[in-house]
Amino acid sequence: MVMEAIMRPGLEGVIAAETRLSDIDGLAGELFLAGFPAEVIAPRATFEEMVYLLWHDSLPTQVELAAFSTELAQKRDLPAVTLDVLKACAEKKLHPMDALRIAAGTLSLMVNPDDASESSQALVAAFPTIVATYWRLLNGQSPIEPDTALSHAANYLYMLTGENPDAARVRALDTYLNTVSDHGFNASTFTARVIISTHSDMISAIVGAIGALKGPLHGGAPGPALDMVFEIGKLENAEAYLRHKLENKEVLMGFGHRVYKVRDPRADILNEAAQQFFPADDPIYTLARAVEQVALRLLEEYKPGRKLQTNVEYYTALVLHGVGLPTDLFTPTFAIARVAGWTAHAMEHLDGGRILRPLSAYTGVRDRTWTSLEAR
Amino acid sequence: MVMEAIMRPGLEGVIAAETRLSDIDGLAGELFLAGFPAEVIAPRATFEEMVYLLWHDSLPTQVELAAFSTELAQKRDLPAVTLDVLKACAEKKLHPMDALRIAAGTLSLMVNPDDASESSQALVAAFPTIVATYWRLLNGQSPIEPDTALSHAANYLYMLTGENPDAARVRALDTYLNTVSDHGFNASTFTARVIISTHSDMISAIVGAIGALKGPLHGGAPGPALDMVFEIGKLENAEAYLRHKLENKEVLMGFGHRVYKVRDPRADILNEAAQQFFPADDPIYTLARAVEQVALRLLEEYKPGRKLQTNVEYYTALVLHGVGLPTDLFTPTFAIARVAGWTAHAMEHLDGGRILRPLSAYTGVRDRTWTSLEAR
Repeated sequence: MVMEAIMRPGLEGVIAAETRLSDIDGLAGELFLAGFPAEVIAPRATFEEMVYLLWHDSLPTQVELAAFSTELAQKRDLPAVTLDVLKACAEKKLHPMDALRIAAGTLSLMVNPDDASESSQALVAAFPTIVATYWRLLNGQSPIEPDTALSHAANYLYMLTGENPDAARVRALDTYLNTVSDHGFNASTFTARVIISTHSDMISAIVGAIGALKGPLHGGAPGPALDMVFEIGKLENAEAYLRHKLENKEVLMGFGHRVYKVRDPRADILNEAAQQFFPADDPIYTLARAVEQVALRLLEEYKPGRKLQTNVEYYTALVLHGVGLPTDLFTPTFAIARVAGWTAHAMEHLDGGRILRPLSAYTGVRDRTWTSLEAR
Repeated sequence: MVMEAIMRPGLEGVIAAETRLSDIDGLAGELFLAGFPAEVIAPRATFEEMVYLLWHDSLPTQVELAAFSTELAQKRDLPAVTLDVLKACAEKKLHPMDALRIAAGTLSLMVNPDDASESSQALVAAFPTIVATYWRLLNGQSPIEPDTALSHAANYLYMLTGENPDAARVRALDTYLNTVSDHGFNASTFTARVIISTHSDMISAIVGAIGALKGPLHGGAPGPALDMVFEIGKLENAEAYLRHKLENKEVLMGFGHRVYKVRDPRADILNEAAQQFFPADDPIYTLARAVEQVALRLLEEYKPGRKLQTNVEYYTALVLHGVGLPTDLFTPTFAIARVAGWTAHAMEHLDGGRILRPLSAYTGVRDRTWTSLEAR
């Protein structure tokens, strides 16, 4: 059967494939991750459990989780040449996402490319090592070896600082990582599916996804939301600051989402994580909540009826800042979470998915004639 | 306006964006490259002219071509650490496409990521250096520095062998590179567009495309077509050999194409290039043409009405073999050509293209309940 060609610029509204991994209901403000409401699974599971759940479609037993966690922890080391590459990147002060993309690509040096499962483990396990190593090199510090005795989240924080993080920090980071571990066919997840749909290998697919996540239109940019809170500094400055932005038609970072027309369910999960993590009288948390209220009131005033809501970036910024991460690491940390979903989607697509190959509409001419170089 | 969701698995028949770069009429067997019939432009232009044409939508004047060729030639060197990476890849005997992907990613070390034009030049210029350097390392030979006095195609052959190739070889390679420089929204070109559609950088987009091109379903695998001719060895073996394959329902590599229902126009261009290049009595060329006739006759007998035709891979294999390339380099050489189209598409998409982001259909459950680890 030949399908009728249909024009859908940007693929808007086109269902490209099926998935069991996540379900977004933007009108109801609901997100399901591998069959669980996000607000149920994200604050309860460790990131290792979340990855296992996405890959295997069931929660691990105690025995399975222990084995899986050990396997992941043993894959945290990088190939020797990767450290040289990261040093070269640090000398040139490359964007951390470029360094992550370049270093992740070298993981082909230590996996069997035909083993999607082994490659996925290597990717998930090595991302925190790459990001922490690069961050320390960029700041003139020596990299810290991974500690296999620590959980995935705890080890990431340890490799950044050299200190064992307390349990509250680790729990907040686990909740963040779980919350954003998957989210339908966003552009980076879709990239991984397009690449693997040719039956290429897992490393190739994920390296492509990192490249897509770097793009500012991807939407995973929580840094600016926090910058705004810092710039406001005191609650009494909030209204004037925000009014100035809105009068100048500037976008308020941290509010509104393409998919969610009501409150992004992930905002509530992360707000709850932040509440449990910050002391009730923490000045940043208190200020951020108060700024949020002013922003929502002014958005309704300037854009009545649009019902713009606080989005996931606003609370991501708050949680990751509380956990101790610098804003430059917010997007790489997003990648550390989302690689769970990328690999799960790529494995799902390998299992019977079709090659993803749309058509283009030609707008050029068809009647050019050759003129030799001498006659031009 | 909210568009109605439509199910199109694999994006079949969905027009995702517009392009002026190439136009494929599969029913008529026509291919236009930047407004020229492929059979007009491919055998006449140098690859440098072809790249300029794709990027600028016009043929260069003599002055423009001289400046452009010099700029490209000056970008052939690799970052220092890239040689270390390629050595590590050679030690592990990685697939040349993986080595190309990894090394191409490191070009971020020498470009301004916000300059898509500079990055595109660096990519086109460095691909032959990467492939030739890796091939020599893989075979225990010392890499050969690029020679800026040679054209793009000539320098690639020179870096592989250390010998200055004759003009006929260079012309045949230029014709091949031009012929496959672009071909609509194939999976790798589409990958580059998806990545850049988030406003990520050019290197990220092309690294993703390399990953997609590696996949066997991409269709750019001319090696096996030539292997078949070699296995047949003598014309009198052809019929029995091919009948055996067809009786066993095996695919005949080099015949049939998803898009072209008549003869792939690129097959004729490459056949003509091969004819001019091989002596009339060359045993391989003569055998390949004779095997082709037997194969077409038997395909009509076993698959009547399917009208399976010789495709571009068959003559690609013949031309690249004649030029002196080993079969393992056929796909990387395809990449050396197609990076012209990838970069042109990415730049075109950056200039007003929409983010490419389809929907998924959820097939999972929504009612999972949490069980603590201890209770599992």
